[in-house]
Amino acid sequence: MDIATIIGLITGVALLLWAIMSKSDIAPFIDYGSVAIVGGGSLSAALISFPIHNLLGVAKVVKNCFFAKPRDPRDLISEMVKYAEIARRDGILALENATGSIKDPFLVSGIQMAVDGTDPDLIETIMMNDLEAVEARHAEGKGLFDNIGKFAPAFGMIGTLIGLVIMLKNMNDPSKIGPGMAVALLTTLYGALLANLVALPMAEKLGRRSRQESLLKMIVIKGGMAIQSGDNPRIVEQKLKTFLPNRVRESGTAAAKAA
Amino acid sequence: MDIATIIGLITGVALLLWAIMSKSDIAPFIDYGSVAIVGGGSLSAALISFPIHNLLGVAKVVKNCFFAKPRDPRDLISEMVKYAEIARRDGILALENATGSIKDPFLVSGIQMAVDGTDPDLIETIMMNDLEAVEARHAEGKGLFDNIGKFAPAFGMIGTLIGLVIMLKNMNDPSKIGPGMAVALLTTLYGALLANLVALPMAEKLGRRSRQESLLKMIVIKGGMAIQSGDNPRIVEQKLKTFLPNRVRESGTAAAKAA
Amino acid sequence: MDIATIIGLITGVALLLWAIMSKSDIAPFIDYGSVAIVGGGSLSAALISFPIHNLLGVAKVVKNCFFAKPRDPRDLISEMVKYAEIARRDGILALENATGSIKDPFLVSGIQMAVDGTDPDLIETIMMNDLEAVEARHAEGKGLFDNIGKFAPAFGMIGTLIGLVIMLKNMNDPSKIGPGMAVALLTTLYGALLANLVALPMAEKLGRRSRQESLLKMIVIKGGMAIQSGDNPRIVEQKLKTFLPNRVRESGTAAAKAA
Amino acid sequence: MDIATIIGLITGVALLLWAIMSKSDIAPFIDYGSVAIVGGGSLSAALISFPIHNLLGVAKVVKNCFFAKPRDPRDLISEMVKYAEIARRDGILALENATGSIKDPFLVSGIQMAVDGTDPDLIETIMMNDLEAVEARHAEGKGLFDNIGKFAPAFGMIGTLIGLVIMLKNMNDPSKIGPGMAVALLTTLYGALLANLVALPMAEKLGRRSRQESLLKMIVIKGGMAIQSGDNPRIVEQKLKTFLPNRVRESGTAAAKAA
Amino acid sequence: MDIATIIGLITGVALLLWAIMSKSDIAPFIDYGSVAIVGGGSLSAALISFPIHNLLGVAKVVKNCFFAKPRDPRDLISEMVKYAEIARRDGILALENATGSIKDPFLVSGIQMAVDGTDPDLIETIMMNDLEAVEARHAEGKGLFDNIGKFAPAFGMIGTLIGLVIMLKNMNDPSKIGPGMAVALLTTLYGALLANLVALPMAEKLGRRSRQESLLKMIVIKGGMAIQSGDNPRIVEQKLKTFLPNRVRESGTAAAKAA
Repeated sequence: MDIATIIGLITGVALLLWAIMSKSDIAPFIDYGSVAIVGGGSLSAALISFPIHNLLGVAKVVKNCFFAKPRDPRDLISEMVKYAEIARRDGILALENATGSIKDPFLVSGIQMAVDGTDPDLIETIMMNDLEAVEARHAEGKGLFDNIGKFAPAFGMIGTLIGLVIMLKNMNDPSKIGPGMAVALLTTLYGALLANLVALPMAEKLGRRSRQESLLKMIVIKGGMAIQSGDNPRIVEQKLKTFLPNRVRESGTAAAKAA
Repeated sequence: MDIATIIGLITGVALLLWAIMSKSDIAPFIDYGSVAIVGGGSLSAALISFPIHNLLGVAKVVKNCFFAKPRDPRDLISEMVKYAEIARRDGILALENATGSIKDPFLVSGIQMAVDGTDPDLIETIMMNDLEAVEARHAEGKGLFDNIGKFAPAFGMIGTLIGLVIMLKNMNDPSKIGPGMAVALLTTLYGALLANLVALPMAEKLGRRSRQESLLKMIVIKGGMAIQSGDNPRIVEQKLKTFLPNRVRESGTAAAKAA
Repeated sequence: MDIATIIGLITGVALLLWAIMSKSDIAPFIDYGSVAIVGGGSLSAALISFPIHNLLGVAKVVKNCFFAKPRDPRDLISEMVKYAEIARRDGILALENATGSIKDPFLVSGIQMAVDGTDPDLIETIMMNDLEAVEARHAEGKGLFDNIGKFAPAFGMIGTLIGLVIMLKNMNDPSKIGPGMAVALLTTLYGALLANLVALPMAEKLGRRSRQESLLKMIVIKGGMAIQSGDNPRIVEQKLKTFLPNRVRESGTAAAKAA
Repeated sequence: MDIATIIGLITGVALLLWAIMSKSDIAPFIDYGSVAIVGGGSLSAALISFPIHNLLGVAKVVKNCFFAKPRDPRDLISEMVKYAEIARRDGILALENATGSIKDPFLVSGIQMAVDGTDPDLIETIMMNDLEAVEARHAEGKGLFDNIGKFAPAFGMIGTLIGLVIMLKNMNDPSKIGPGMAVALLTTLYGALLANLVALPMAEKLGRRSRQESLLKMIVIKGGMAIQSGDNPRIVEQKLKTFLPNRVRESGTAAAKAA
Repeated sequence: MDIATIIGLITGVALLLWAIMSKSDIAPFIDYGSVAIVGGGSLSAALISFPIHNLLGVAKVVKNCFFAKPRDPRDLISEMVKYAEIARRDGILALENATGSIKDPFLVSGIQMAVDGTDPDLIETIMMNDLEAVEARHAEGKGLFDNIGKFAPAFGMIGTLIGLVIMLKNMNDPSKIGPGMAVALLTTLYGALLANLVALPMAEKLGRRSRQESLLKMIVIKGGMAIQSGDNPRIVEQKLKTFLPNRVRESGTAAAKAA
């Protein structure tokens, strides 16, 4: 998981614990029934919202997305330029030997198709479709977190309503009104925390991560097309660098010159 | 109904019952008048929102959509490739004999038009229009659930306001305030449950299902076009596989090779 | 007004009356001042939101839209095919005699322009523009209901705040707190009912109706273009049928064959 | 200001005054501090939201937009047709003499450029850009009202929270709780009124007015292009009338014939 | 920081202080724990929402965006026209000497590429991509403020719920209920202020600033293209002036003539 997510979660939880414990003990804030209503309710809603195989696939996507460190695009461009040089010097078939050392399966499959003599338009269609499929899977992952961010507060409110009804039916003993209401409010608190400290911020980060990965795949696709059409490595570099933001591009150029 | 929907609904209801019964009995949570306000109010709003024949059609679409098991797209592609082989070997008219064993009426009508010598552009227009009509019907179904998800909480609030007014007018006996308010809150609880445990999650799943079915129909249309233009079965397969996500595609290829 | 709207409104009102009267009498729920605040406030907001001539035009559009029974599109297609046959057999000028018996002024004006020898592109531009103007008027009508659905709850809340301030300023007599609050809540109740039982569902139906009418006008436009370009009546029919959903289309074909 | 806006504002204010005064005197509803919080807070938020020169420009746009009576598009079309006749009869340079009597500066600048022999494509680009600039200024004006409609209720809530904190800190004298709360609620009331009776309805009308003005400018642009390309006045009229809705167009034709 | 932002912030804060101090002292409104919950919670959510390098980059973008005074577009156009004259008179290579005195690095890099003989299409692609990268960074900055504007009220509510639970658990001493609730409400107040006085208005201004800067960059790109294609300086000016709103354009022309 990336460092900011961990820091954010720890900071958030620590702050709330400190805020609670500076004025009270932690015990009144723990109620397993309330956890069950908010967590279980959100899970139920997710089960109804998503076809079950999507739900399982999503867990995997989310894990990859948070734990896999995204590659530096300048690095990737240098690599693509290297392959362009090989293809230019020794012919495109020479790339087949290089594929053994490439780690990115997306890049390998693109080179493999080019070596096999697949029609360039078909290669582009297939790779663009792969990119779209990856983006769709990421969108599903983001959708799951958005879903929890929407349903957790709703089940928080449902739990509070249940607690209030129980409390209101038993108002004979006034001394129990306060504690009863305190417990009723816990589900709303849990729902708000689950949504605002976990689900919604994670959905935002997932969306940003997905755009980063799409950029990398775009560079592979456009680079592969340029290599196959026999472009000069210099032109390949210039074309791919247009995918980088301004400042990054300049330092990237420097790095490429140094290389 | 798909298994996740059933599990989700049962889990959700069981959880809420357990949460209620661990602290109270279930009786104070049942009030038929409140059920009537929320259910009847949402139904009234739906009747005003939808032309009546849409409303009836929607029920059917929803049923199909939840109960019909969507076909595996890899299966469908294998079938399309088989027809491409027949058309290539024995001519397109030979497909007419095959239509008897095809179950998907959408595919049959496409082949029938091709055999009848209908202009390919017109076939594509007609089939694309059918696809759009199916998507529009699914959108209507999703629209109905979204509609309930929007109006159920509103009528929950209306019911609570009615209950509060009645309670406030009769505040002579303080011992009745609590129970009166408890009953008033029940409609809000019902509205929130109907929206968040049933209507909104089902609307989400309906939307996902609809996209799956559109994918299948797209494969039939593009496959049919490729067959009619006399494409090599290998090319038909490659073209159709671009509709599959990455991982599914590879195992699909394996299956096709094994076949 | 279409049957579903009437049933929906009656069901909704009956339900709420029953819910109220099973527990109280109806008197505490009627307060003319509250009606004035919610109704008058929403009307004021509508007057400021809409240029006055739009507001008057909207009433007409809405009336037409709810009371005019939309035509069966299969019927319209049969009629268009009939005109195509006349034009094919006797020349396009022969259609002028037919216009006397046509009820739809949109269709008459299209045929008239064709008979007058207006340039087909200009006819299409003019008719498409008419279609857009009708859609814009419908959107204005929907906009008015959406507007009421947005402002009615707001003025409900404003009325409740006014009631609460009055009540809180006069808290000397505790026995008046309950009834004062009950009256204050009435505006919120009225606002919620006006929005959720009338304005928002009607806005939804108006949107659906508008799409139905646009479909009919599209059929007239495309059919008229096909007739003018001298298409074979069979082709005209096939082209227009692509506007129909699947199932309707098939029964429509059957009807056409029977005809 | 257009008549509907005035009627709407007067009706709304009168209604609320009547509703208040039928049950209480007006004094408890006036609190200058509360006015300052809601008005000043919304103004502060607007100052931060908008670059200062936009803010000043917006006031002007809004004034023009509410007070300038929009021209009847049929009128404008008749005028354009007249210029088309002059240009056709006496050459486009003859229009220069006519510009003295034209009031619309947008139209004058278009004719001037045509007389100067500016390239038609450039004229169209410049005039379309002017149209877009006007629409952008209108959008800024609408944006300001939307902004107030968003921030006024927020500062109303902020004021109420401040009032509640003050009241809760001084709960020793129970007789002051009611009046304290009444004052606290005033800011919420003011915020709701400012948003729902003034800002949001005005934003809606501004949007509608802007579309009307864009239509007029579109007629000038398309008419000017047609005149410059030497179109027959009859064709110019037919082309421009396609911008009018159906019914208006027919009476417009009648007027043109009568002329 | 631009003057309106400063005035807005000072006015807003002064108003609220005055409103508080006219009725109470400021002490009950200061609670460091509450500051920590709202500020820390919003920060935690931002850390989880944004990849950490984005978060650091955003701070820089925001600073530039608020403090850098945007250039007058008329000025920039005059400058571009001057370069067009040099290029026309002395050839495009003569511009290299001029780059020393140009401050805008975006403009320098464009001229440099033109002087180096880079293909015009590639220059345009690279510069448009730079523009998009700048817009993306601005959107990230706006996104951060929108993020705070969304999460601050949520953590305000979370803090209030925590305070209420603590208060309700200790209802033995009624005299502590009021002050306890007052403290609980402070987080909601802080959250509303952070969102509505700081984050949301700043997000709006950031969006407006970004559009201004994009306009300037668009002028540089289109002007550079026109210069490189050897356009007459008069045409360059006319083309670039179409980016200016009406009134500004006329005074701009006057200035250009005076120059």
